[in-house]
Amino acid sequence: MAAGIITGTELSAETETALERAVASHRHEALFSERAHNIKQSAVRDVFDISIRPGLVSLAGGSPSLTGLPLDLVAQTASKVITEHGMEALHYGGGKGTEELRALICEIMAEEGILGASPEDVVVTTGSQSAQDIAAKVFCNPGDVVLVEDPTYVGALNTFEAYQVQVEAVRMDGNGLIPEDLEARIAELEAAGKTIKLLYTIPSFNNPSGITMAAERRQRVVDIAREHNILVLEDNPYGMLRFDGKPLAPLRADNPDDVIYCGSFSKIFSPGVRLGWALVPRHLYRRFYLAAEAVVLCPSTLTQLIVTEFFRRFDWRAYLAESRAVYAQRCEAMLSALAAEFPAEATWTTPDGGFFVWVTLPEGIDTYPLLHEAIDAGVVFIPGAAFTSSDEPSNRLRLAFSGVAPEQIREGVKRLAPVVRRAVEQHAGA
Amino acid sequence: MAAGIITGTELSAETETALERAVASHRHEALFSERAHNIKQSAVRDVFDISIRPGLVSLAGGSPSLTGLPLDLVAQTASKVITEHGMEALHYGGGKGTEELRALICEIMAEEGILGASPEDVVVTTGSQSAQDIAAKVFCNPGDVVLVEDPTYVGALNTFEAYQVQVEAVRMDGNGLIPEDLEARIAELEAAGKTIKLLYTIPSFNNPSGITMAAERRQRVVDIAREHNILVLEDNPYGMLRFDGKPLAPLRADNPDDVIYCGSFSKIFSPGVRLGWALVPRHLYRRFYLAAEAVVLCPSTLTQLIVTEFFRRFDWRAYLAESRAVYAQRCEAMLSALAAEFPAEATWTTPDGGFFVWVTLPEGIDTYPLLHEAIDAGVVFIPGAAFTSSDEPSNRLRLAFSGVAPEQIREGVKRLAPVVRRAVEQHAGA
Repeated sequence: MAAGIITGTELSAETETALERAVASHRHEALFSERAHNIKQSAVRDVFDISIRPGLVSLAGGSPSLTGLPLDLVAQTASKVITEHGMEALHYGGGKGTEELRALICEIMAEEGILGASPEDVVVTTGSQSAQDIAAKVFCNPGDVVLVEDPTYVGALNTFEAYQVQVEAVRMDGNGLIPEDLEARIAELEAAGKTIKLLYTIPSFNNPSGITMAAERRQRVVDIAREHNILVLEDNPYGMLRFDGKPLAPLRADNPDDVIYCGSFSKIFSPGVRLGWALVPRHLYRRFYLAAEAVVLCPSTLTQLIVTEFFRRFDWRAYLAESRAVYAQRCEAMLSALAAEFPAEATWTTPDGGFFVWVTLPEGIDTYPLLHEAIDAGVVFIPGAAFTSSDEPSNRLRLAFSGVAPEQIREGVKRLAPVVRRAVEQHAGA
Repeated sequence: MAAGIITGTELSAETETALERAVASHRHEALFSERAHNIKQSAVRDVFDISIRPGLVSLAGGSPSLTGLPLDLVAQTASKVITEHGMEALHYGGGKGTEELRALICEIMAEEGILGASPEDVVVTTGSQSAQDIAAKVFCNPGDVVLVEDPTYVGALNTFEAYQVQVEAVRMDGNGLIPEDLEARIAELEAAGKTIKLLYTIPSFNNPSGITMAAERRQRVVDIAREHNILVLEDNPYGMLRFDGKPLAPLRADNPDDVIYCGSFSKIFSPGVRLGWALVPRHLYRRFYLAAEAVVLCPSTLTQLIVTEFFRRFDWRAYLAESRAVYAQRCEAMLSALAAEFPAEATWTTPDGGFFVWVTLPEGIDTYPLLHEAIDAGVVFIPGAAFTSSDEPSNRLRLAFSGVAPEQIREGVKRLAPVVRRAVEQHAGA
């Protein structure tokens, strides 16, 4: 016992426990894997804990609006599934997900332009983040390169970094990933002897920037990746949420052999069911799904059956149309509030779908310390530095309009504006 | 296009697609990570697909009996949770799991002898297999050693091998892991310069053998691990299912700093909700839960709320008592059928809890080819070779009594007996 080393002293039980723990902690420090040191707290999740404080306006989390969901019908569906199919719903299922859900997923994908996908090529995953985790697991050795957009989804960065990959950012402009930059970056990395395995992209309404890869760039990006034998990992949770209702064809659409496509029920239905999917090139499928199985055995049968049955009973196409209108209205509320409240030195993106607006302040301003001032003012956002793999400070911030009603959005922007204005003035005066 | 290489030939669209895929497949073969080659199909999952064929008696899968569950109450609970707490249930939750579920988990663990555990030390996971995945991720570099019981759970073997660890087996006798063998194995491996990170054990009703680590060995095993700075990863899904109703205190009980404890709702309630947990030493907690978050963001809020509410409304202690009686009866049915039907050359374990009986045939018989004969005879089991990390053939087989009614168990054993008898006779004659 650790306490034994201190002789002639009476120790309280609490002190003894604390001492024992300190000794164990010291002893166990050497046991962590190298990759464990790369696993960081996501800034988004960090702010998630803060943002549920009452009274705060959260422009932080990329939460879908659930207020339009008919809870009674969801409840009825869950009850029916359990009563009528309880022995299946409460049991283990296959590692790929149920056939019925995989068929539904193919219908959903057809709606956004992936035609003729086979349920046999779909793996249902525990949210689409776990599809990214599996992709990294199956393809990346430590030191391999994953190309990402700059900026990109913080959760994917955390997932990749857990596999000790080298994450390399490729620049975007208002039309998304810049093909010339992609080529230049690949050439540089190949010249340096690097092995590039994946290009991770969120082509529609990128998280955090809201930027969309232009239709005319999409095939070019896949072609570049193919020429260099790089797999495209396409993350498309917001694809169906284009405000005008006409989703752009995903990169996967005409490239079944070169793109792993990740979709999710989180933004079009509910994050609480934790169901996403990957549509995997057939020749890569077996390894992909075995890796999924090695982590979770199977996705939740209960939530799979509930989602399948709900989508069968519910006019989800009409619901998506309503959702798009809700998000378009919220986006408009945010854009007009920004125009009314923010100083002229700030600029921002004008997304045509998705959940986010990306604000740029004058260079040299670090938005991270502003977060604390914003919390004091009653509003939260995510500082831009979260969305890059570098440790550089960022003059950008992500504002999510998706989960908050228009009047709250206006209130949040109003609270944030003085914080931003002060930072701009101090910076100009410095 | 791949088809372009064949000049002067008209190719059908199908042939073209097949050719393109073949080219992509060849090109992508080099992209797999080293660990991907270690990810194998689990023999259990393999047989899972076969065992749902109508008419077959499955003694293969370790499925819990769900027939005693009041489906109406589960359905009502799900409906109530969605109607009354839908905005929470269908949303993202925290990465550790809900506070309410973590508090319930502490009550459940208290029931089996882990007293005073704090919800702050619990991480809710997507089944307990994903807790093992996280442990491997956080602690194991490629080449590190994980000690396991021989035999051990095939799913854990698959999970560990995905991290390119060296899995080393320690012998068991009828009282579980042999402490002297554990010490000898550690000495050997340390002498060979190996780094041992984890000792994975299923101390109560080991899967597949049904063997229980004797109470008097438990502290000794933890002490040996501690002396060598090895963390104990205790997997205890069946702990509450001891037939006499008095669970043995888990290794974690008196060793809060040295044991990561994995529990599961799969065997005591339902595998379909995909909820398990890890109780983690406080000084290791942060890294553990961040790694969990990097894979799935959060466990399903919907199934967490359903399980919490159901356990609050339901006399789960009484249900567990009934479950134990059901499993005891099924185990008894299997043991008496084996005694009546199997040849004298076969021996088997007599478990006092859990799901499995482990049968040993005369040395030199490989039970893997017997599986095909058994399927023809209308019964499935899992060949023993699945439960070791070696590629050696095994003269053992796992029979699960948990998911099948007594008359089916008797029928299954009756169908299997001639297959076994033939193998024994041929072996004796050879």
